[in-house]
Amino acid sequence: MKIAVINPNTTSSMTATIADAARRVANDTTTIEAITSSMGPVSIEGYYDEALALPGLLLEIARAERNGAVAAVIACFDDTGLDAARALADIPVLGICEAALSAASFIAQRITVVTTMERSRLPLEHLVHRYGMAGRVKVRAADIPVLSLDDPQSNARDRLRNEIATALREDKTEAIVLGCAGMADLTLDLRREFGVPVIDGVAAAVKQAESLVALGLSTAKRGAYAAPVHKPYIGALEAFAPATIGVA
Amino acid sequence: MKIAVINPNTTSSMTATIADAARRVANDTTTIEAITSSMGPVSIEGYYDEALALPGLLLEIARAERNGAVAAVIACFDDTGLDAARALADIPVLGICEAALSAASFIAQRITVVTTMERSRLPLEHLVHRYGMAGRVKVRAADIPVLSLDDPQSNARDRLRNEIATALREDKTEAIVLGCAGMADLTLDLRREFGVPVIDGVAAAVKQAESLVALGLSTAKRGAYAAPVHKPYIGALEAFAPATIGVA
Amino acid sequence: MKIAVINPNTTSSMTATIADAARRVANDTTTIEAITSSMGPVSIEGYYDEALALPGLLLEIARAERNGAVAAVIACFDDTGLDAARALADIPVLGICEAALSAASFIAQRITVVTTMERSRLPLEHLVHRYGMAGRVKVRAADIPVLSLDDPQSNARDRLRNEIATALREDKTEAIVLGCAGMADLTLDLRREFGVPVIDGVAAAVKQAESLVALGLSTAKRGAYAAPVHKPYIGALEAFAPATIGVA
Amino acid sequence: MKIAVINPNTTSSMTATIADAARRVANDTTTIEAITSSMGPVSIEGYYDEALALPGLLLEIARAERNGAVAAVIACFDDTGLDAARALADIPVLGICEAALSAASFIAQRITVVTTMERSRLPLEHLVHRYGMAGRVKVRAADIPVLSLDDPQSNARDRLRNEIATALREDKTEAIVLGCAGMADLTLDLRREFGVPVIDGVAAAVKQAESLVALGLSTAKRGAYAAPVHKPYIGALEAFAPATIGVA
Amino acid sequence: MKIAVINPNTTSSMTATIADAARRVANDTTTIEAITSSMGPVSIEGYYDEALALPGLLLEIARAERNGAVAAVIACFDDTGLDAARALADIPVLGICEAALSAASFIAQRITVVTTMERSRLPLEHLVHRYGMAGRVKVRAADIPVLSLDDPQSNARDRLRNEIATALREDKTEAIVLGCAGMADLTLDLRREFGVPVIDGVAAAVKQAESLVALGLSTAKRGAYAAPVHKPYIGALEAFAPATIGVA
Amino acid sequence: MKIAVINPNTTSSMTATIADAARRVANDTTTIEAITSSMGPVSIEGYYDEALALPGLLLEIARAERNGAVAAVIACFDDTGLDAARALADIPVLGICEAALSAASFIAQRITVVTTMERSRLPLEHLVHRYGMAGRVKVRAADIPVLSLDDPQSNARDRLRNEIATALREDKTEAIVLGCAGMADLTLDLRREFGVPVIDGVAAAVKQAESLVALGLSTAKRGAYAAPVHKPYIGALEAFAPATIGVA
Repeated sequence: MKIAVINPNTTSSMTATIADAARRVANDTTTIEAITSSMGPVSIEGYYDEALALPGLLLEIARAERNGAVAAVIACFDDTGLDAARALADIPVLGICEAALSAASFIAQRITVVTTMERSRLPLEHLVHRYGMAGRVKVRAADIPVLSLDDPQSNARDRLRNEIATALREDKTEAIVLGCAGMADLTLDLRREFGVPVIDGVAAAVKQAESLVALGLSTAKRGAYAAPVHKPYIGALEAFAPATIGVA
Repeated sequence: MKIAVINPNTTSSMTATIADAARRVANDTTTIEAITSSMGPVSIEGYYDEALALPGLLLEIARAERNGAVAAVIACFDDTGLDAARALADIPVLGICEAALSAASFIAQRITVVTTMERSRLPLEHLVHRYGMAGRVKVRAADIPVLSLDDPQSNARDRLRNEIATALREDKTEAIVLGCAGMADLTLDLRREFGVPVIDGVAAAVKQAESLVALGLSTAKRGAYAAPVHKPYIGALEAFAPATIGVA
Repeated sequence: MKIAVINPNTTSSMTATIADAARRVANDTTTIEAITSSMGPVSIEGYYDEALALPGLLLEIARAERNGAVAAVIACFDDTGLDAARALADIPVLGICEAALSAASFIAQRITVVTTMERSRLPLEHLVHRYGMAGRVKVRAADIPVLSLDDPQSNARDRLRNEIATALREDKTEAIVLGCAGMADLTLDLRREFGVPVIDGVAAAVKQAESLVALGLSTAKRGAYAAPVHKPYIGALEAFAPATIGVA
Repeated sequence: MKIAVINPNTTSSMTATIADAARRVANDTTTIEAITSSMGPVSIEGYYDEALALPGLLLEIARAERNGAVAAVIACFDDTGLDAARALADIPVLGICEAALSAASFIAQRITVVTTMERSRLPLEHLVHRYGMAGRVKVRAADIPVLSLDDPQSNARDRLRNEIATALREDKTEAIVLGCAGMADLTLDLRREFGVPVIDGVAAAVKQAESLVALGLSTAKRGAYAAPVHKPYIGALEAFAPATIGVA
Repeated sequence: MKIAVINPNTTSSMTATIADAARRVANDTTTIEAITSSMGPVSIEGYYDEALALPGLLLEIARAERNGAVAAVIACFDDTGLDAARALADIPVLGICEAALSAASFIAQRITVVTTMERSRLPLEHLVHRYGMAGRVKVRAADIPVLSLDDPQSNARDRLRNEIATALREDKTEAIVLGCAGMADLTLDLRREFGVPVIDGVAAAVKQAESLVALGLSTAKRGAYAAPVHKPYIGALEAFAPATIGVA
Repeated sequence: MKIAVINPNTTSSMTATIADAARRVANDTTTIEAITSSMGPVSIEGYYDEALALPGLLLEIARAERNGAVAAVIACFDDTGLDAARALADIPVLGICEAALSAASFIAQRITVVTTMERSRLPLEHLVHRYGMAGRVKVRAADIPVLSLDDPQSNARDRLRNEIATALREDKTEAIVLGCAGMADLTLDLRREFGVPVIDGVAAAVKQAESLVALGLSTAKRGAYAAPVHKPYIGALEAFAPATIGVA
């Protein structure tokens, strides 16, 4: 069972962190194929980066399906391109925000997401709302650039810890969700440090992907996620025309 | 990895159906322990039956945890006693309604639950609301007694099929959730018949339980699910006092 | 006109407090029958206690109806077992949380509930939500065990006063609802002390019960509250089978 | 205990219907003072009539309080002027829509309001929403002028009956609320005819008023319902200046 | 193109402020007719003043339409009488609260309204809710009487500035809406001072009115805003009968 | 005053229809610059097309701002890329769905959007929800491909008319919003035919853009719409790096 875990930004060190988190929890019979997008922003911070991450992401979704992946995970906490990927692919596609919130919903009533930049807070609140968790999830930003999480000089991880401590004190929260794929390697340490459930979306999405496959379930194709209509695509994006990218 | 799947009604033929559905999707390394409640109603149809199913259910939750289960599934679509079970146990506890809706949420935007009796429709709508899916899930009742599902003389399964057909035609629904544990054995047939995703909560909950265990997650204990306070229980329910039933 | 006021925990001193609050406001023509549950927890603090209070409560609901009560009040602020009691009985059944919130809704736009333990806060928020008051009611916990309210050594009543003072200062609240039946005797003192409406649910529910009887209204029986279906109940709970407990 | 029941339209035959409904359920110790507004529309059908009913209504609220009423009921199902009346008066003021919906909420989960004119449907839906019952109440209009209810030549009462029959069949509703004060005399007949709870707001509001008085509760005055600020009123409405109309 | 901008209170100095704000943004081809109500309160502070402002306002709405205005603006932030005015008139009628919130919705995700008196806060929250912005708008009151805004002796404008500064610091708000027509002259100064979008509803409503006229749109008349039914109006309000005030 | 109206699909005949609709309502002092995207799908039907329309759209947004446009309109009813465009540009950016719904909100309480393909219905329902109009707007699909609107052989316009007729009959709707930019030329005919307000989003957005400019308002830049962070963009999308595309 091959699951494609796609990092929709173009920074391969972050893909390595994501791959580790995915492999740590995958079943023995699961192969994790970790993929870095070949075009677009080096990190996704806000709406503009998100928009330009889409072509690279969708290309990898199509390629992964063609190459035999039975499910795909989009490893960016904004769930960038999730709807488009579900329309494009026949295999199930998981977002790490929705997977993390879903896992949290089974073990806690009040949950806090701690993300990186303030500008990502409102987009995540929209996701929380769409996933039906508006009454029970609070989103906090530690005000740290995404790539600083990997920079040993930065104080990013300290600021993240501080924000979690504040959440536990002020939100009466019961569980913490890490709001960025680049935080995945911190999960176990933070659980130990704070003594509460700490949830990483990459791991949650991999388990959810395995579950859907075991259940024999894939994306419903009779409504919002119907396969793209065949039509010409013009100019620099010609290769993305449904027939060209591989829609049957 | 032992997962307890508890049928909170007292009808063991229904436990057999549930056990089959659980085992069909469980990992090779998972042992399914299927348990029938030792006291209470023979089927759960409405609020009163639900209330009287609780003592038997909670007894089995405590026993299962004591006996080494790493997770428990409550195999009644009303998610009977789920909050109490989470407060009682340290291991994760899953409801089949919430697990089914969660699985459906990853593959469809519009979902219809088809349940048995009209009197269960509103309680299920309350669950749908609480699980944050009120805008995307419709609940329908096929108007069939729970135990008639197993009765070859009854037309229960035909009525269920009719209700699904109506849902597909009128709700523009994209996926069907089976709203009773006793329907679990119909899942594959109904998928074949209707050509849309059909989701059984027993199977979904077993996979969710395996996932939470693999992720190292269990119920948060600092808020609504804090362990029961030690105190006397009086009269016929003395044995349920937290210290007696086994709360540390 | 006999109204049964049932304390679903097994502590009779608390029943006495409840009976006093009920009698203080009842019409001259009303007889208050105050009843202590014969089995279950000595106080209800969280989901587990709530679940085990149900059999004792439902037994008394059935008995009260048989003995000629024209309405019943469940005197626990969690509205424990309210739905099951309504399905079981033909007479109207009131919860003290819903009755208190309803009374408050006629005299104030912003309301604060002050309850006992933190673990009861989220269950009460779910009730507030279900009763349609999520936008206008805040729930606070004074962090005091239920039975400490009656203990002259404890500082429970001071902590309650402090929480009310905080609510008035920070929530811009207009009225206070006492979130535990055991606080009923404090109502008048707190009104005098704080100069705002302070509402006790026991009194509110008794008046609501009298009103429904005077209006000739009882629980609707054609939907969610349809009478329990006749069926066997097994094992230790055999006596709760609908036919045995007295469902016609 | 004198309760003022104010008909905010200027048709005294409708006041008589209202007075009957009020007296039928009032306690022996309650005096119902039924009052017809002295100025404004002869019936309230839509937003414009509602606006022009306010001065006459508020005048009677002030007068009733001055004359010793301990509570007031506004007997129009649009709850016309309820907020302004609560700000003006120190005694509790009840609307018949909110009182009817509150009574219904204790006995049924799904409720249908049947009102007169289509143009009143949306204003009532706004009330239903504000009172927190949007998920459980449907509003239907029988498309009949308000005053036709009293006209033996019209088929208004037949159309009302038809709309109730439709509601029971199509809404799976459990209880009916009569959406106009002018329907109050039909309550008992409709209950008998349809065999479900039928609720008239005038009666419900009178009982709610008695209850609030018995509970010692009146409108909270520290927030939205603070007493009007003293200030000049100009021109034809000079007499409504707070000091002149009687605000202390 | 003549647009009537109606100040529903009776203070003409405030009308002058409003007229200036309206003319500053109007198209060259637009004539602003600024009108002071001839009867009612000198300022609108809470529900009671609002109710008594209606007759004067509706008279001016009818007169403005008769005199050739192609649209009308109600220049009070409570959107006093907006529904009744829309039912009465054929021309479009705009409220300044809804127009300001609409303008803000196109340029910001999180918005804070700063109004005058605490007693206006909850009525404005109800408007925010009705206009669908409950999740993204916070209402704050600077605790200043409306007419103090024009009083050079008062510290009203300093308190307003303080409240805006607090909103920017604590709400993470992105834009400020001025919650009183009497603040309109401060808009440009506050923008300069705080460096964020500051929105005045009078100006916003005038532009919205011009837009609707250019789009050829007027109030829909087949539902909630159907023209008032012809009928007698009694007593002091006789002149407001639909036929008399000018409903065709 | 130059307003850029950008057709995010690559079909220039549709741009012509859009330009006509924009110019018909623009002020005399406004210049409409109608722009066809240079890359991507020939029509936008569902999530996949939407995602691939983003690069071409954002390129034109940046170019239009550089070329002196004072506002931009995205002329696709899915409001494709609206958030990213607002983050990218300093000038105000309008979506035609939000502009149409906003215009409708000032003249009607119940509104129906009639769009083209069924697969666009759910994405539009998400927009309706996000814009706070979920309670008052229904979305219907006429089941017609976008480009068929321009095809004289197709029966697309008849199906559109049929769907509007159904909406008026069944939804008790008060106003119609045309749910596709390609329907803009039908607005006046449909108003005449059905006698209710019919709203085209292109025209509505142009007027809204003019209004924001006249009000001196532009996108708030301190929260969700903060300018993109400078960073490298990799591979085929290098030219979209914030510094390259022109972010200051």
